[in-house]
Amino acid sequence: MKRVGFLTSGGDCQALNAAMRGVVKSLVNSGEQIEMFGFFDGYKGLIYGNYRMLDISDFSGILTRGGTILGTSRVPFKTIKEPDENGLDKVESMKHWYYKLRLDCLVILGGNGTHKTANLLSEEGLNVVTLPKTIDNDLWGTDMTFGFQSAVDIATQTIDYIHTTADSHGRVFIVEIMGHKVGFLPLNAGMAGGADIILIPETPYDINKVVDAINLRKERGAKFTIIVVAEGAISKEDAKLSKKEYKEKLEGSKYPSVSYEIAAKIQKKTGKEVRVTVPGHIQRGGSPDSYDRVFASRLGAEAGALILKGEYGFMVGYKNREIVKVPLQDVAGKLKMLAPDAAIIKEAKMLGISFGD
Amino acid sequence: MKRVGFLTSGGDCQALNAAMRGVVKSLVNSGEQIEMFGFFDGYKGLIYGNYRMLDISDFSGILTRGGTILGTSRVPFKTIKEPDENGLDKVESMKHWYYKLRLDCLVILGGNGTHKTANLLSEEGLNVVTLPKTIDNDLWGTDMTFGFQSAVDIATQTIDYIHTTADSHGRVFIVEIMGHKVGFLPLNAGMAGGADIILIPETPYDINKVVDAINLRKERGAKFTIIVVAEGAISKEDAKLSKKEYKEKLEGSKYPSVSYEIAAKIQKKTGKEVRVTVPGHIQRGGSPDSYDRVFASRLGAEAGALILKGEYGFMVGYKNREIVKVPLQDVAGKLKMLAPDAAIIKEAKMLGISFGD
Amino acid sequence: MKRVGFLTSGGDCQALNAAMRGVVKSLVNSGEQIEMFGFFDGYKGLIYGNYRMLDISDFSGILTRGGTILGTSRVPFKTIKEPDENGLDKVESMKHWYYKLRLDCLVILGGNGTHKTANLLSEEGLNVVTLPKTIDNDLWGTDMTFGFQSAVDIATQTIDYIHTTADSHGRVFIVEIMGHKVGFLPLNAGMAGGADIILIPETPYDINKVVDAINLRKERGAKFTIIVVAEGAISKEDAKLSKKEYKEKLEGSKYPSVSYEIAAKIQKKTGKEVRVTVPGHIQRGGSPDSYDRVFASRLGAEAGALILKGEYGFMVGYKNREIVKVPLQDVAGKLKMLAPDAAIIKEAKMLGISFGD
Amino acid sequence: MKRVGFLTSGGDCQALNAAMRGVVKSLVNSGEQIEMFGFFDGYKGLIYGNYRMLDISDFSGILTRGGTILGTSRVPFKTIKEPDENGLDKVESMKHWYYKLRLDCLVILGGNGTHKTANLLSEEGLNVVTLPKTIDNDLWGTDMTFGFQSAVDIATQTIDYIHTTADSHGRVFIVEIMGHKVGFLPLNAGMAGGADIILIPETPYDINKVVDAINLRKERGAKFTIIVVAEGAISKEDAKLSKKEYKEKLEGSKYPSVSYEIAAKIQKKTGKEVRVTVPGHIQRGGSPDSYDRVFASRLGAEAGALILKGEYGFMVGYKNREIVKVPLQDVAGKLKMLAPDAAIIKEAKMLGISFGD
Repeated sequence: MKRVGFLTSGGDCQALNAAMRGVVKSLVNSGEQIEMFGFFDGYKGLIYGNYRMLDISDFSGILTRGGTILGTSRVPFKTIKEPDENGLDKVESMKHWYYKLRLDCLVILGGNGTHKTANLLSEEGLNVVTLPKTIDNDLWGTDMTFGFQSAVDIATQTIDYIHTTADSHGRVFIVEIMGHKVGFLPLNAGMAGGADIILIPETPYDINKVVDAINLRKERGAKFTIIVVAEGAISKEDAKLSKKEYKEKLEGSKYPSVSYEIAAKIQKKTGKEVRVTVPGHIQRGGSPDSYDRVFASRLGAEAGALILKGEYGFMVGYKNREIVKVPLQDVAGKLKMLAPDAAIIKEAKMLGISFGD
Repeated sequence: MKRVGFLTSGGDCQALNAAMRGVVKSLVNSGEQIEMFGFFDGYKGLIYGNYRMLDISDFSGILTRGGTILGTSRVPFKTIKEPDENGLDKVESMKHWYYKLRLDCLVILGGNGTHKTANLLSEEGLNVVTLPKTIDNDLWGTDMTFGFQSAVDIATQTIDYIHTTADSHGRVFIVEIMGHKVGFLPLNAGMAGGADIILIPETPYDINKVVDAINLRKERGAKFTIIVVAEGAISKEDAKLSKKEYKEKLEGSKYPSVSYEIAAKIQKKTGKEVRVTVPGHIQRGGSPDSYDRVFASRLGAEAGALILKGEYGFMVGYKNREIVKVPLQDVAGKLKMLAPDAAIIKEAKMLGISFGD
Repeated sequence: MKRVGFLTSGGDCQALNAAMRGVVKSLVNSGEQIEMFGFFDGYKGLIYGNYRMLDISDFSGILTRGGTILGTSRVPFKTIKEPDENGLDKVESMKHWYYKLRLDCLVILGGNGTHKTANLLSEEGLNVVTLPKTIDNDLWGTDMTFGFQSAVDIATQTIDYIHTTADSHGRVFIVEIMGHKVGFLPLNAGMAGGADIILIPETPYDINKVVDAINLRKERGAKFTIIVVAEGAISKEDAKLSKKEYKEKLEGSKYPSVSYEIAAKIQKKTGKEVRVTVPGHIQRGGSPDSYDRVFASRLGAEAGALILKGEYGFMVGYKNREIVKVPLQDVAGKLKMLAPDAAIIKEAKMLGISFGD
Repeated sequence: MKRVGFLTSGGDCQALNAAMRGVVKSLVNSGEQIEMFGFFDGYKGLIYGNYRMLDISDFSGILTRGGTILGTSRVPFKTIKEPDENGLDKVESMKHWYYKLRLDCLVILGGNGTHKTANLLSEEGLNVVTLPKTIDNDLWGTDMTFGFQSAVDIATQTIDYIHTTADSHGRVFIVEIMGHKVGFLPLNAGMAGGADIILIPETPYDINKVVDAINLRKERGAKFTIIVVAEGAISKEDAKLSKKEYKEKLEGSKYPSVSYEIAAKIQKKTGKEVRVTVPGHIQRGGSPDSYDRVFASRLGAEAGALILKGEYGFMVGYKNREIVKVPLQDVAGKLKMLAPDAAIIKEAKMLGISFGD
């Protein structure tokens, strides 16, 4: 008999439900007797004992459903070791509920922040298996995260929509794509959407180079230019600032996001009207695409296998086309970046895409 | 023999190409000999003689293509009678090109602004047939405009995406939907997306009623609330301002759009975090949906029939499920609003949707 | 207090759930106390007392879900008055359960067959309100049925997919589209998908005219031809047969469907390879589109209003852009056809589409 | 200066245009002067000198377009060495046109059959670079082919549509998915679509095991069963036949495809009505998904790099997440199968999916 707790933490994304369904199907089909507990709204549910028992029917029909049936929330890692406003020790409280429910393990689905806390719980002696969830694909230890490809689909569709309108009006259009501090999502969406310029955090941009690229297109007869700006895009000058200085600069900015600042600069330098579109949260919504459904189901199945074998302290990841287990301490606190000399960036440049660098 | 000029004017939308293809197929299949001229970027092309000859192959494969193959621009009606920066008389110049190319007629696709100028040209003696294009569905004289249903599709999809993320995070989400000064698009998208609250220009809102509706949902156990805000939504107080006063208020506002102001108010009154999504231009992008493709093709075919019969000075519209011709002077300068007591608003209220009124 | 039974009957389609949700929201928001019963699998559930109580939470989140949460089945009208294999009188049994559960009324969602039985139950004294469900749009008494527009979307998408492959291979492709014995669905999908030839039941085809149209396209330089064949398409010769003779002919045919017979004839007459695609059941699957979600919700809301007023014996339909109530006896047993001289057929011909007539 | 010929051969698929655009953009952006020739309809164009010169504008806007702008056809390898009906030596004729146009190389996009001929041309001394196109993903030497992921999307969507209707009617549904003689496409689509049973060529099925799986689902309370049948699925008995015997059996079968035979067997053994859906050619149609657009663009860019370096005789493939060049002689004549003990099959079984083995 296995008593298994589930929680989903951090920003929601596509295929969280598909991944949990995978774990559950794998456990239930093994013949082992399973008791399941779902904690609500991420670590909050574990801290405050907010949970309910789950059965197999809770996972029926959720392969295609976006979001998470358990709810989620962000509890920043740096606050985890601090007591809450009533003086409750959060880590002790999570351990309390774990032991009180006599859990054999916790299945935790999340991204970077989530993995720091998951690793802490593992170090505190709890049995933990994690699954790599994020539209940003910035988790260390895995080539791919679920949610990523579905988010690329939606971001690409947004660029497609903008393409027809940009073409009709002959304008410069900026589409701001998520991806946190890394460029995987904006780069892939930009390439898929046929963007002319893509600005990503890994290659700080020079606004003059961006303007040159726009002008070059005009000279060659193009009516319009589509620029994909990563939400984490940064200029060469700003990249020289300290982290603290840059944060202060952003907080003091009059622009709602970096895209608007870039738009203003281009408008000033070219005299052209620049339109900004920020698809925002829709990039993490909706049904997972076929890639993510298969991928998340496979990871979930293998997480089930680890639980059945009693192998804990791992994230189930994907390396070189194989599903692997990665020690949590290797994952926690690291960030997977896109190397500035990555083949895909080189190829994007071969295709004529400017990175403004 | 007929010599026909085409131009698309105003904001682009879906099915502009489908509509033009309809006209051309109808003309060409009639057996009549046709010469076709496409003016680029709306009235600008006609003013400055910027055009090219078109043939049937230009219209092949464009049924499904968004945007407009001719390009478009906005030339506000109030500037049409003013000379341009070089002293050119725009109206005379349009007439000049019309006569110089020995056109039998102009086919003009556009919305409200476009129709004022189209009517002026008609009054000046040019033969004009127009087609009703706008995602806002606010054109007088027709029950439906093409672009509208496709925009409802995209706006609905946006709300669907937000639904999964709102549900996962238990938040109040605002989705700002286009529609200019009328509520057709936000109302239909809101109903299709299962919005809980819909704020449209036709029913000015009371922010306290909006907050009440959010709280009522919370009491009934709902984790989240989705609010669709029309880009033209207005509060009861602001609705009392003169047009000029309200314009000044908007221009002086620190918020990028009405949604952000409403979000701030709700946040202040409820203490809840409110997220805003503004899909913006994507609502006019992409391939037309099946409804708009059929509808625009039908209107185009009938416009062709009018040209063949030499009946000019009309918009081809749709009334009571029949395609009709509507005199341009009846269309120009009017706005079709949604009546506050329209059946669809009553039904939306029966479904439990709050309008904040 | 109102005790309301629900059942969905006949082939499933999109927006059945949306429509039921509309009724329930409208009832529950009225303040009236409501008890709800769902009968499973159409009339079978009512005949055999197979039901469960429903509450408002059963209708949460189903606006976008395809199919029907109650299940459905076809119980042909001609068998309704016959006893079942155990001698049970079906009509009496339905009345038995209606009275046993002390229902105030039945809400029945269905198409042509369904309405015959619904009318019978109404004549037997039960309180009945119906909603017009069918992808075929062939229900008498309403301009539109829900499911139709969503099915047009899917059928159109299928034709779009075939378009790229037909273009690449330079082939004649037949796409067989549903629609039962009427042409609304194939005609609209064909026009939206840019089909070159559309064969519908209302205009029996002459295979030589079909071949002429293919050859004409070839002469004009077209590489491929797309033919939409209604599942109920019929040749001019077969149209002369009696209903019985034609039925026997179909049953004795070596072809799985009319499309294959037409393909064989074209292949024989032209020497060209003809490919057939039959999307089949997928046309009734998936999430309803935005049009159907709004439309079904509105009809549902008005059905709720009738129930609250105690007005029974009606289908809630849509005529001249207004939601209306139509006496069941007017609906039952009739078929709404597309008139061969309908404006939309005339316009399709103006666009150069051949009907093979 | 480089003179480059292009041809697309075999069944069309998504992202052929995206891949060619990638090659062209990469060549043109290199600064090298490029002359481009497009051969129509695959090897036929090269055999009969049916081509036209291409320029960069031919590749504008085709990233998202399905099919191939050059057209395609199947010329079976075994007929390549035979003279045509007029006695023309096909191989010599292809060489003739290659030299006559003073080509530096041929870019050939295709699947298994295509690569045999491409290798032959390479052995005959022509400079050849190929790109791996097939929805089947069965090309040796590459982990992935373009077209595959887009086809998985469409096949999955089909299963999603069937899911709602299967659920509503409580039926056994078979969906026949393409994939030629390998299981990649049906397996991935089946997992993404939540199929209960998946029959693929790599694991011959026992019809009794299939029936057992259906009955087990029924016992556990499931209303319906979805079976994905690969177009190349084979029973354990048939797998014992010689290739020739099996081919004869198929040709003599009264069923249009294997799915119908399986349906008949299940129907006979269970008494349940079994519905069959064959999406067919739509699986290779439509716009490429975001994955394929990026993937094909990257492969195209690297093919351009090979041409610029004058490295010929290679297919540009993808191995262990890197784009690689694979000697044509290694690719030609081999088939990439899914190993029956592949991790993904094991995981599918862990998820409870039956393979009928």
